[in-house]
Amino acid sequence: MNANKFVVGVDFGTLSGRAVVVRVSDGAELGSAVHEYAHGVIERELPGSGVRLGPDWALQSPQDWIDVLRVAVPGALAAAGVQADDVIGIGTDFTACTVLPATADGTPLCFHTPERPHAWPKLWKHHAAQAHADRINELAARRGESWLPRYGGKISSEWEFAKALQVLEEDPETYAAADRWIEAADWIIWQLTGVESRNICTAGYKGIFQDDGYPSEEFLAELNPGFSGFAAKLATGQVGEKTGGVTLAPLGGLAGPLSAEAAAWTGLPEGIAVAVGNVDAHVTAAAADAVRPGQMVAIMGTSTCHIMPSDRLAEVPGMCGVVRDGIVPGLWGYEAGQSAVGDIFAWFADAHVPAGYAEAAAAQGMNAHEYLTSLAEKQAVGQHGLVALDWFGGNRSVLVDHNLSGVIVGQTLATRPEDVYRALIESTAFGARMIVETFEQAGVPVEEFVVAGGLLKNRFLMQVYADVLRRPLSAIGSDQGPALGSAIHAAVAAGVYADIEKAAAAMGKRTEAAYLPDPTRADAYDRLYAEYRNLHDHFGDGRMLHTLRAIRNEAAS
Amino acid sequence: MNANKFVVGVDFGTLSGRAVVVRVSDGAELGSAVHEYAHGVIERELPGSGVRLGPDWALQSPQDWIDVLRVAVPGALAAAGVQADDVIGIGTDFTACTVLPATADGTPLCFHTPERPHAWPKLWKHHAAQAHADRINELAARRGESWLPRYGGKISSEWEFAKALQVLEEDPETYAAADRWIEAADWIIWQLTGVESRNICTAGYKGIFQDDGYPSEEFLAELNPGFSGFAAKLATGQVGEKTGGVTLAPLGGLAGPLSAEAAAWTGLPEGIAVAVGNVDAHVTAAAADAVRPGQMVAIMGTSTCHIMPSDRLAEVPGMCGVVRDGIVPGLWGYEAGQSAVGDIFAWFADAHVPAGYAEAAAAQGMNAHEYLTSLAEKQAVGQHGLVALDWFGGNRSVLVDHNLSGVIVGQTLATRPEDVYRALIESTAFGARMIVETFEQAGVPVEEFVVAGGLLKNRFLMQVYADVLRRPLSAIGSDQGPALGSAIHAAVAAGVYADIEKAAAAMGKRTEAAYLPDPTRADAYDRLYAEYRNLHDHFGDGRMLHTLRAIRNEAAS
Repeated sequence: MNANKFVVGVDFGTLSGRAVVVRVSDGAELGSAVHEYAHGVIERELPGSGVRLGPDWALQSPQDWIDVLRVAVPGALAAAGVQADDVIGIGTDFTACTVLPATADGTPLCFHTPERPHAWPKLWKHHAAQAHADRINELAARRGESWLPRYGGKISSEWEFAKALQVLEEDPETYAAADRWIEAADWIIWQLTGVESRNICTAGYKGIFQDDGYPSEEFLAELNPGFSGFAAKLATGQVGEKTGGVTLAPLGGLAGPLSAEAAAWTGLPEGIAVAVGNVDAHVTAAAADAVRPGQMVAIMGTSTCHIMPSDRLAEVPGMCGVVRDGIVPGLWGYEAGQSAVGDIFAWFADAHVPAGYAEAAAAQGMNAHEYLTSLAEKQAVGQHGLVALDWFGGNRSVLVDHNLSGVIVGQTLATRPEDVYRALIESTAFGARMIVETFEQAGVPVEEFVVAGGLLKNRFLMQVYADVLRRPLSAIGSDQGPALGSAIHAAVAAGVYADIEKAAAAMGKRTEAAYLPDPTRADAYDRLYAEYRNLHDHFGDGRMLHTLRAIRNEAAS
Repeated sequence: MNANKFVVGVDFGTLSGRAVVVRVSDGAELGSAVHEYAHGVIERELPGSGVRLGPDWALQSPQDWIDVLRVAVPGALAAAGVQADDVIGIGTDFTACTVLPATADGTPLCFHTPERPHAWPKLWKHHAAQAHADRINELAARRGESWLPRYGGKISSEWEFAKALQVLEEDPETYAAADRWIEAADWIIWQLTGVESRNICTAGYKGIFQDDGYPSEEFLAELNPGFSGFAAKLATGQVGEKTGGVTLAPLGGLAGPLSAEAAAWTGLPEGIAVAVGNVDAHVTAAAADAVRPGQMVAIMGTSTCHIMPSDRLAEVPGMCGVVRDGIVPGLWGYEAGQSAVGDIFAWFADAHVPAGYAEAAAAQGMNAHEYLTSLAEKQAVGQHGLVALDWFGGNRSVLVDHNLSGVIVGQTLATRPEDVYRALIESTAFGARMIVETFEQAGVPVEEFVVAGGLLKNRFLMQVYADVLRRPLSAIGSDQGPALGSAIHAAVAAGVYADIEKAAAAMGKRTEAAYLPDPTRADAYDRLYAEYRNLHDHFGDGRMLHTLRAIRNEAAS
């Protein structure tokens, strides 16, 4: 079956884009290339004009994304030694919610008015719309909006509505000029096909699209009279299924044929299949062949994102969102997360490990993480006497409270850096267990825990997770999961496979039971986890942590 | 008045002994010398025989103490440019409880049987008698011994009875050979005068001497039948006041004239006054001219010891001890403490500060503490968002629980080392405030807070204490407080002053209101202190911290 046919997956990340060439018959990854964004993350001033940005802003340049198509795709083809004529489709995934204002023909507003900050794409981690998100949440709770529980009771400041409301209220002219308010995940498809589409995934998780519609005009008008017609900027793409007056494109669907212009950029044949846009975390489920009910994929990097299809709808406390068809058509797609995971280890290794450790690590040819792990893994469970709360970046699930902070308990004058490092690793595993247990208690079974992402390379950390979770861990078999997942979607869009499940089964890579729990260690971790839960209950109400943060913010201002 | 007469104070510390020559008229410190102990702290094996010691052992050599008399005293005289004939007295202070077995003539048993570990002096921080202390406490509580509340409900494993019980049960031959069981504070006086004496201070704080007697034979027999006659090894020195059948020597009293042998060691005139033995912390009160009711002297170094005379007897929760005449005759002497203070800052600076900080400190000619302080002191109160429990070395007062451990709350990915360093400094100030408030709530007023010890040199830290305590801090005017205090006691013993109060007024040095609280900062600290109290209440019951320690100990074994 198409043994000599290929697809290209393109993963648009925070700092770079990666293309990978994949064989459709078995998912073999034959070559890849990375293109670093020339503008990186725009946080301080606008390119060209030098206009200063406020705190917590984060923008990107659409030109950088186009350059990925022009550079990384041909680069991956060359690296793979594959003829362009043998490529039959292309799929993409993006960070989300990364969103931009555009004119009716898809031109980013920042190409017209580059001196206006609000004309630029807002990167997912643009956090300057928190006040707007707070108002959305307050009003939605007061009105009892039915969609609110689908997001664990809180809309994020990172998402489409909060960011758009910020534009409306801070730069009404740009808001008015924006015919379209579009996820970069969909905008890139528009560039590849010349046709606008809106994928179900970002519409649901980031655009509050639930039960066939966006939030009501009445709700939006109560936020701000000028916001009442906002959904018109999101709605009615020209590709996909009509649902309640809005047309959305299903995942794995065909967005359209590759346009002549995009064929020229990429060196790919005009007219090949372009898959509907998607999100990096969600598309990884396909790469791990984990798109069946109860397969929870944890994409573990600086933070962790948990993605799980299920045949059941439930209100799981503290989930980020549940979206019908949001991972694969026909199932509910759940998302949960831990705000900081690898970020915690990096923070500790950077700021809290003494010079002697850095020297010892260098002498052994290790980086700080490898060295700390080598020391930590020699310990018996609990030997450090510590337990920590993994809230150094707040708590996304299950408490949905970004104003929480970290707690470390049990240190003595004999506590060493490797002790704390291990306790921090364990704290994130306890946080993951809390999420899994919350799903199961809500009636949504977790049948398999599948790990993907950069932290897979730390085998000790993986073993801790297996022991703490008391279950085997499966591991993705690719270190470029999102790009592979996008390629799998391209194969579906190209018609090679009937659906994502079949394509994932053929092309996805997952090692089952890659890590098995050790019963003795698991029992020991149960005792520590009980203390983690005690801390979680005690500090989770936020009384002390919110007070400390309020004092901090007052003192800093 | 004796404008050209001098006294010598000798402070026997953990690693060295220091002698200082002081003018009796005004306390001027004219010269000093330090002698490092050749044997230091003996923790691994015995000198000569190489016999291995168990964990938590800590011994000293009496020869090292004699060498201080032979080296440091003449050295101080030479440095001062004072003629020996103008010296009219010598006083000493010692770590406590540092205690040794001796024959009836005062010869240390380790001079006879140097191959036996139990024949050597046990240093204050010998912690291998915890099991024996636990039994003493359990039995005393069960029997309702009246002396137990005088020690906050707990006898320390560092004290005379626990250490002696360990000798009896682990080396009964040495126990039997020990005619005397004597504090080093008293043994050194025996060497200087040729006459045995037992001072009220160590007898009360370390020897459980209360209400005219030691614990009863019945109590001791119930601990171990062979222990019933133990008090005979402590009792009936030949100098001092008879009290309930036991002769104890009052502080500031004359132990006897300097013997010919000791005169030869020291180069001092035979026959001059030798003051009764004393303890380093307690004698510092005189050096700070803070021996009146309600003057609390905090000797702040690796740990903090709080010493306060009062005219009232009360059971202050968690004090280390209250002893009649224990600081100055005629008043109740209170002692409380914080197990780790400077030790916490040293632990953090050594083990949790990255290479870049060490380099920046070196570039500015600072040590790590100075550099961290320079960063921390720029912050507004509460700007770091943190609060910590200062229990990294356990909690001596007011919880009397060495199985507690540290807690740090509120860290984020933006938390820097100087933030934690400042929070740790503040945590020890909160711990001090808890002690002061506990005294006052028990009906023992604290009229003045006087600081002595090595941490005085950190002016920022002092200001934090003033702000947190909401009261002016007085500061001792000497950086060799214990030796100066011993010299003051020598002046009393020599008859220059009628009592310690008068001598301290003339010779002691204290700057009142050296640090004044800032009302705005004090208000801000009140809010953080409220959170400290919340943590204190939550973790003080030990449920979680004892569990973590039990898990740790099981895992390590």
